[in-house]
Amino acid sequence: MKIGIIGAGQLAQMLAMSAYQLGLETLCFTDTKDVPAARISPLFIGSIENPNNLEKFANEADVITFENENIDINLFKRYTNKLNPSLNALKISQDRLFEKHMFEKLSIPCAAFCEIDSIGSFSNVQFPGILKTRRLGYDGKGQVILRSHDDVPDAWESVKQVLSIVEGFVDFEFEVSQVATRNKKGKILFFPLSKNQHKHGILRLSKAPYNDDDLQKQAQLYTQKIMRHLDYVGTLCCEFFVKNGKLLANEIAPRVHNSGHWSIEGTNCSQFEAHLRAICNLHLPETIMVKPSAMINIIGTMPDNKKLLEIEGLHFYDYGKQARNNRKLGHITICSDDELDEKIKQTRV
Amino acid sequence: MKIGIIGAGQLAQMLAMSAYQLGLETLCFTDTKDVPAARISPLFIGSIENPNNLEKFANEADVITFENENIDINLFKRYTNKLNPSLNALKISQDRLFEKHMFEKLSIPCAAFCEIDSIGSFSNVQFPGILKTRRLGYDGKGQVILRSHDDVPDAWESVKQVLSIVEGFVDFEFEVSQVATRNKKGKILFFPLSKNQHKHGILRLSKAPYNDDDLQKQAQLYTQKIMRHLDYVGTLCCEFFVKNGKLLANEIAPRVHNSGHWSIEGTNCSQFEAHLRAICNLHLPETIMVKPSAMINIIGTMPDNKKLLEIEGLHFYDYGKQARNNRKLGHITICSDDELDEKIKQTRV
Repeated sequence: MKIGIIGAGQLAQMLAMSAYQLGLETLCFTDTKDVPAARISPLFIGSIENPNNLEKFANEADVITFENENIDINLFKRYTNKLNPSLNALKISQDRLFEKHMFEKLSIPCAAFCEIDSIGSFSNVQFPGILKTRRLGYDGKGQVILRSHDDVPDAWESVKQVLSIVEGFVDFEFEVSQVATRNKKGKILFFPLSKNQHKHGILRLSKAPYNDDDLQKQAQLYTQKIMRHLDYVGTLCCEFFVKNGKLLANEIAPRVHNSGHWSIEGTNCSQFEAHLRAICNLHLPETIMVKPSAMINIIGTMPDNKKLLEIEGLHFYDYGKQARNNRKLGHITICSDDELDEKIKQTRV
Repeated sequence: MKIGIIGAGQLAQMLAMSAYQLGLETLCFTDTKDVPAARISPLFIGSIENPNNLEKFANEADVITFENENIDINLFKRYTNKLNPSLNALKISQDRLFEKHMFEKLSIPCAAFCEIDSIGSFSNVQFPGILKTRRLGYDGKGQVILRSHDDVPDAWESVKQVLSIVEGFVDFEFEVSQVATRNKKGKILFFPLSKNQHKHGILRLSKAPYNDDDLQKQAQLYTQKIMRHLDYVGTLCCEFFVKNGKLLANEIAPRVHNSGHWSIEGTNCSQFEAHLRAICNLHLPETIMVKPSAMINIIGTMPDNKKLLEIEGLHFYDYGKQARNNRKLGHITICSDDELDEKIKQTRV
């Protein structure tokens, strides 16, 4: 069975690695050959805008999935029978407003929000808030803090007056991710919650399991609602803010997610393997055993792997990308039963 | 750091997969591009007999290792500073007579043997015995059972009168493998013993751990002797016959070994990872935690992976080779705390 993956970055790379352990083939669609997945997977090189390319690619693949939700939905309408997660999941996760409406509809708590389509819409905004473009934001891009109305004109210019929302500022304690995988029969595999730390808007550290039965229960309930609502097939990540022991939904990613990379070493069925099993209609495990694990992103410059690999239980991923400021170049996973925090400190990454 | 691997079969493929999780690059030397490792590693394609090729390859690689001990030692004399395991380990493991002499020298019990260099040498043989060519035998090839002197002429013809030994027939109960990895400082990581089952001379099943403290102790002692004697760096496999609670050394393989594939899922540092760590002078873990695991070779024809993947804890490796009678095309690993034997039966492979 051949999995067609739209994209060929590090997520495609890790999907391809997992595919190898399931006897599956992969083919990654990319417009350039200098990509992380090139190391592990055959590539289909071409422009996705050319429908002939996509047609040829779709003919070669038994199933199609993607590593990035920001793809043109219209291109994929002909291939819905092979595509998972679905176009509907893509459509909602591409747009913060649709996401918020879904949270409301499903009675999932989230930050207050206000739709912005012109400078006039800011009159309804309560400050402080965060201006977020509805589409194409990631790693803190397309977000501006609004302390008061005085910040509005510059902020509105800085996002180039695109359709946006203003989110009420949530003074949250920390963020958690619920990664989960749902198969075609509706069975859901929940990964343990991970606690996330960001730096300059970019995920730096995810640590799992975050052992809080109550939060875990809330996260599973909300994630299940979303997955059922979307009739979702594959791996999904829901990010939640935590405040006073309650969860507020932040956003969803309809794909394998950076905050779940620790699951490669920390579980017996990683988020990547689970995703492949779900979209290929293969058996999804009942339970996943977990060793306490942490994922640390390598951002901007590559450290010396030799020194880091001295740390027992550490694995080191180099995505093979050109170094660039604020770019995710790789990650480290550390597994340890009782010295996880100490080992995280030792990495000094 | 770039690892040059001589060979590009499934062992190189799995080495390359492990390299990826350590931030290491690989380059596999092969004379044809249609090889298992092509999926995961860049290839260096050329004839190894051409010294210019090897020179170019060696210049690109920081360290050199191999997946098959049957390589021409003379070609590598210029590259001993980069090569591990060493030429000496290669030389001894290439020749059953040298191996036997080493076992004797190190007081490691092994089957009685008799050197054969002409039809006349058979006069010293005690029957029954097994005629084995000194070089190039694997998967039962180059071996003929001698029940009595009557079998000698045909047997001697069938091995084409090459230098051989006759080994006394050992009526052993079963075979075990001790896989171990030694680093440059002399530290050794011992994997738990696996119990092996063969079919038509080809390994079919390896199951670990084979929990017998006494046998494990013997195996570690003998393996340690061999590794120290060879000043060995990397992963080595020693196969032993078991009879009446005692081990008899059968042969060594100076490389990662088929009977250790279960360690990918069954340990926190597989034989492949351990090999790379040793030859790259990276930290070797103190201990490896183990989940009971079994590896089943897929020989001759590929089964349907979908059905097999229904079995919880099963992984499936397809080496991407053309199907052929008695050819190893892939393997399955199953991990299970308490239902391993049952699950092995379920595979029906």
